[in-house]
Amino acid sequence: MTASLKRRQVVAVIGAGDAPRDVCELAFELGREIARRDAVLLNGGRSGVMEFAAAGAREEGGHTIGILPGYDRHAANRHIEFAIATGIGEARNAVIVASADAIVALAGEGGTLAEIGFAKKFGKPIVALDSWPEIDGMSRADTPAQAVALALKLARSNSRRRN
Amino acid sequence: MTASLKRRQVVAVIGAGDAPRDVCELAFELGREIARRDAVLLNGGRSGVMEFAAAGAREEGGHTIGILPGYDRHAANRHIEFAIATGIGEARNAVIVASADAIVALAGEGGTLAEIGFAKKFGKPIVALDSWPEIDGMSRADTPAQAVALALKLARSNSRRRN
Amino acid sequence: MTASLKRRQVVAVIGAGDAPRDVCELAFELGREIARRDAVLLNGGRSGVMEFAAAGAREEGGHTIGILPGYDRHAANRHIEFAIATGIGEARNAVIVASADAIVALAGEGGTLAEIGFAKKFGKPIVALDSWPEIDGMSRADTPAQAVALALKLARSNSRRRN
Amino acid sequence: MTASLKRRQVVAVIGAGDAPRDVCELAFELGREIARRDAVLLNGGRSGVMEFAAAGAREEGGHTIGILPGYDRHAANRHIEFAIATGIGEARNAVIVASADAIVALAGEGGTLAEIGFAKKFGKPIVALDSWPEIDGMSRADTPAQAVALALKLARSNSRRRN
Repeated sequence: MTASLKRRQVVAVIGAGDAPRDVCELAFELGREIARRDAVLLNGGRSGVMEFAAAGAREEGGHTIGILPGYDRHAANRHIEFAIATGIGEARNAVIVASADAIVALAGEGGTLAEIGFAKKFGKPIVALDSWPEIDGMSRADTPAQAVALALKLARSNSRRRN
Repeated sequence: MTASLKRRQVVAVIGAGDAPRDVCELAFELGREIARRDAVLLNGGRSGVMEFAAAGAREEGGHTIGILPGYDRHAANRHIEFAIATGIGEARNAVIVASADAIVALAGEGGTLAEIGFAKKFGKPIVALDSWPEIDGMSRADTPAQAVALALKLARSNSRRRN
Repeated sequence: MTASLKRRQVVAVIGAGDAPRDVCELAFELGREIARRDAVLLNGGRSGVMEFAAAGAREEGGHTIGILPGYDRHAANRHIEFAIATGIGEARNAVIVASADAIVALAGEGGTLAEIGFAKKFGKPIVALDSWPEIDGMSRADTPAQAVALALKLARSNSRRRN
Repeated sequence: MTASLKRRQVVAVIGAGDAPRDVCELAFELGREIARRDAVLLNGGRSGVMEFAAAGAREEGGHTIGILPGYDRHAANRHIEFAIATGIGEARNAVIVASADAIVALAGEGGTLAEIGFAKKFGKPIVALDSWPEIDGMSRADTPAQAVALALKLARSNSRRRN
């Protein structure tokens, strides 16, 4: 067989499906930063923050994975390269968090809060970008570039601690 | 066939699996109140808040359902009458919330935060008992009796709104 | 706390949601037999085989649990006493099998075949009643009474082997 | 935003995790054929058929996705490029089938049978390669090249029928 491949780091960007313009612009920049650093963008595959983050990653030639709630792969936004049709509804939020090395959180609602809860439960590094001041135990960043740099750094030290 | 049965209201009690004594005592009282009001107690089926709430409900002769993360039904605590072995891990938190008419939240950590997120996402009434002051949009109660009364009242009005 | 309760055996009845009359009558008899033997009837909570098996169990005063694919507990048929709204779609078939001590299979299609596959995977005893001659490794029965008796006997010996 | 990307066809290869040498060799050839035809290889991400199919796809420079049962992405075999850690156990079989445009089945046991059941349920084209003669309603092929060609052809006509 061929030699083992080196798997890329995976960063999830979480936030609202109906986010306002300024939050979507942050998501787009997050996607660009993730791709520039040769990491894979993973999210819920739908609209709003999910669509803009995927668009940003694709603009820089990065890979994008969408973990969809339903069975229809065509429900993924058009910047998702690999659409996983889980059919498990909102429980997919646990899959998004478990499948990432680190998470960057933008403003969001119930679904995003569930993902933050899973990140704490699973011990995954999570960076809040201009959001969620009320939740303890998250790292903080002021810009997309800082958020992605911090997320990847925390993921590496998390990975070292396990090995 | 026989006449249709009238399905009981279902209340989920959520909180930590390794809660301190005083929180477990609140859970036990919540279980008793739920059974006294002829509702079904549903939770994650394990230790701590989950075990004490189930014990309280059983003491009053109520039904108890445990939604387990793994495939082993014997992992349910001994006060769970009906053990559902989901095998879907922490994603079961979404099942707990979706299967309840209302949720009462005690102090907890990541898993409980995920359940609060799902309650918001699914539009389920959720009452915080002496906990989670930092999360907006939850109803508040000071005693187990108040919490259960409020949870059942909100569930009824929620159900009317849908019909 | 109160003494530990003795949990009842759980038997799943699987088969088509749009089964013909004669198969539904077998399902009804299976439900009656399960309840007469003080076991709990568990299934997918919808129409056809699922509805008739639950009706039979209720006629004998037995407990019935429905593991639903969606988030709407009201989608359960009217003979389901405890409706679990998994929201995980067809993946709930794995939950049905994992949550039962034994399975009785009637004629069915893709969903039933998936459940037979999971029963083999999980090492759960499975009895075919007048169905699935093409699948190896299932026990066979000619009447509902025989099927339930055999299912419960296999479940007991399965449980002893584990302990 | 950038132009919409053209998503590749996805083919799942299903079969035993502890398959004998000759079945693993068929899996390797299936992986190669899938990659040569510019499709993505998707499977359960573990050993046996899953590992050899991924190795074959990688040898031809194709993309490989593994849908894992647990939370540990490092449990994926070393030829999986994108590891999805579902944490939903054997219920992931439904995700594998739902996320593919077509399925090729090799010899297998309970898990593979569950996947065949889901393929029927979801109306996904499924091609048996030298296996499963007892199951009706599957297409048949004699060689890996024939199996992949037929799977992709059926996927295209399936997709046209939906649109």
